[in-house]
Amino acid sequence: MKKKLLIIKKFGGTSLSNIGKIKKAALLIKKEILLGNKVVVVVSAIGKTTDKLQSLINSFSFNGSLKEVDAILSSGEQASSGLMAIALNNINIKSRSYLGWQIPILTNSSHGKARILDISPVELKKELKKGITPVIAGFQGVTDDFRISTIGRGGSDTTAVALASKLLADRCDIHTDVDGVFTADPRWVKKAKKIDNLTYDEMLEMASVGAQVLEPRSVSLAKNNNVVLWVKSSFRNVIGTKIDNSKKLEKRNVSGIVFSKNDSKITLLGIPDKPGIAAKIFGSLANEDINVDMIVQNISSDGKYSDLTFTISETDLYRAKKCINNIKNDIKVKNILPDSNVAKISIVGIGMRTNAGIAEDMFKALGKKGINIDLISTSEIKISVLISRKNLKKAINILHQTYNLG
Amino acid sequence: MKKKLLIIKKFGGTSLSNIGKIKKAALLIKKEILLGNKVVVVVSAIGKTTDKLQSLINSFSFNGSLKEVDAILSSGEQASSGLMAIALNNINIKSRSYLGWQIPILTNSSHGKARILDISPVELKKELKKGITPVIAGFQGVTDDFRISTIGRGGSDTTAVALASKLLADRCDIHTDVDGVFTADPRWVKKAKKIDNLTYDEMLEMASVGAQVLEPRSVSLAKNNNVVLWVKSSFRNVIGTKIDNSKKLEKRNVSGIVFSKNDSKITLLGIPDKPGIAAKIFGSLANEDINVDMIVQNISSDGKYSDLTFTISETDLYRAKKCINNIKNDIKVKNILPDSNVAKISIVGIGMRTNAGIAEDMFKALGKKGINIDLISTSEIKISVLISRKNLKKAINILHQTYNLG
Repeated sequence: MKKKLLIIKKFGGTSLSNIGKIKKAALLIKKEILLGNKVVVVVSAIGKTTDKLQSLINSFSFNGSLKEVDAILSSGEQASSGLMAIALNNINIKSRSYLGWQIPILTNSSHGKARILDISPVELKKELKKGITPVIAGFQGVTDDFRISTIGRGGSDTTAVALASKLLADRCDIHTDVDGVFTADPRWVKKAKKIDNLTYDEMLEMASVGAQVLEPRSVSLAKNNNVVLWVKSSFRNVIGTKIDNSKKLEKRNVSGIVFSKNDSKITLLGIPDKPGIAAKIFGSLANEDINVDMIVQNISSDGKYSDLTFTISETDLYRAKKCINNIKNDIKVKNILPDSNVAKISIVGIGMRTNAGIAEDMFKALGKKGINIDLISTSEIKISVLISRKNLKKAINILHQTYNLG
Repeated sequence: MKKKLLIIKKFGGTSLSNIGKIKKAALLIKKEILLGNKVVVVVSAIGKTTDKLQSLINSFSFNGSLKEVDAILSSGEQASSGLMAIALNNINIKSRSYLGWQIPILTNSSHGKARILDISPVELKKELKKGITPVIAGFQGVTDDFRISTIGRGGSDTTAVALASKLLADRCDIHTDVDGVFTADPRWVKKAKKIDNLTYDEMLEMASVGAQVLEPRSVSLAKNNNVVLWVKSSFRNVIGTKIDNSKKLEKRNVSGIVFSKNDSKITLLGIPDKPGIAAKIFGSLANEDINVDMIVQNISSDGKYSDLTFTISETDLYRAKKCINNIKNDIKVKNILPDSNVAKISIVGIGMRTNAGIAEDMFKALGKKGINIDLISTSEIKISVLISRKNLKKAINILHQTYNLG
């Protein structure tokens, strides 16, 4: 007899944007249950509900209280969990909805970006035993003073993985509007292919650089708890992308290409080459909660000055410029050059660091096409370069071809 | 020194249909607080939110579970309570939102039309003492098995009155998009005037016949607990309508005219005049949960047969006809005549029963204008007549004039 599985199935907002889609998702869940498996469902808010609620909140000059923001935003998942439970009951799958406080999913009090402290499995296990399929409102929890909390953007992925870990689920399916994780964004690269298997680390790099199918935090959580993750289509019956550590060593190579257009570059020209200057610059940015991504420093030809270039999120550009201007005299910078017309492109794959040729191939391929590289940064499994935004599409396609990903 | 009051202020959906209106309502609340009073706010869902959620639910062939319906519908008030708390914090009134389960407002398990069993005052009193203005999500409670319940249509009025009773509030302001309760619907009668004071019983009759400013259930609850109710504008700084038992005896007269266009009439012609027939008819309607309002029976000229006419809600007409058809042979009715082209018009006022001239004036006035009366029913403080729907406007205006309400 085939082993009966416990599966967490998470559906995002785009998979639930109308009643037809909710019914389709319910049928996917039913299919799994008819195989003899048990399913715990996690849902995001319907379509753009959260964005709409956020825009109402943004009508106020200040948000008043993050606790209230969480009470408002969490209402979206409340509605969708009830609707999914109804959709399941309609096709004879006994179901009930659960809100964060009803389970409870206990979080700390960092409203808006709360961390899950614990999930009580008692209630859910009891219902599963009775043959009832629980539908859990994602993204939300409850604090120990009984306020509703939310766990940050893409939080439903994290809810799903945390439940998978706590309930010792056999796998966690993240359903989305694409067939899986691709070697590159199919809208940019015609020959992009679905990837069958990724390691957690590869997925982490791809998620954080731009493959918007999974929240990086949920991937880390899955990695730390050995939760087998799948990225799957909500609509098409195709095998998705499996994320675990089972990938064979000999297969290690470039897995995919991701990019981001949300970066801006700031170049500081003619800084005196003295100790402590960089610390001052990045210290003052950190004080403003501005994350710096790539950093490159060059000594000028005469050895007295250095040029410093770093990238930040485009949304932080205004604040970063202000921040640097405030310490301009202190750091004695000659010129500040902001540039938003940049894009970051990364090749991701485990074993990259130990394969010297990979980086070389990347730089060669871009050079051949006349694409200038502004900055380079590398990690164990990723090489990122900053290029002019206008060259982005050309660059992705040439790299996709270079590494035979098509 | 003026006595500091505790006031419950309830705002309905039309008073909160956009951010501008929410801000306006917040200013009304602030005004009360600046007078030194304490306020507990109750809010409905924003604008048409509940209707929109209900229509999503209606997309399913059966609702699956009333518990899920309640989880979905209650999300509207959740969002609006948070938004109102933010609006108040924005104008320096310290505030926080409360959901039914957070207070708790304990109800029975009749989901969709739950009854409030108890409201714990502890949490709210504690916050009020700290100078915090609580904003309570109306319409919702929690059952003893921790499911969210809703208390039926217009439930936020009932939430407000129940809170006023439990917290021994000095008054309960129901804010709406009109200035108060009117002698007749101002859209139908140009000279309609705002009523300054009504008794609970008058308001009950007016509410149940068609003045849609207050849920009848909340008026009963206010009556039973001596809660002083006010119907007030959310937008205009005018004195509203006070509902209590302070109305002076000598002022007793016709207070207002209300109407309903949601009724249908069924006439059964030629029923044998035997005992038990009426019981069969109304018993079978009751079995189908169809409420009958007015009933009139006449003996035919030869004394062998009788004609029976009754009114029901127009939405029940189809089911009622089916129901009567099923027992047609049993009750030996000769002819069944349904008619939706009717309207009910009622004059309301305490002391009416003891003032014989009032009814006479009504029938005379209608007769003079050639308006035929189909049915008449009376209560302690109300006389209702059923007329042809096309005569409604004319009838309201002539009665308004007859009783000098303008």
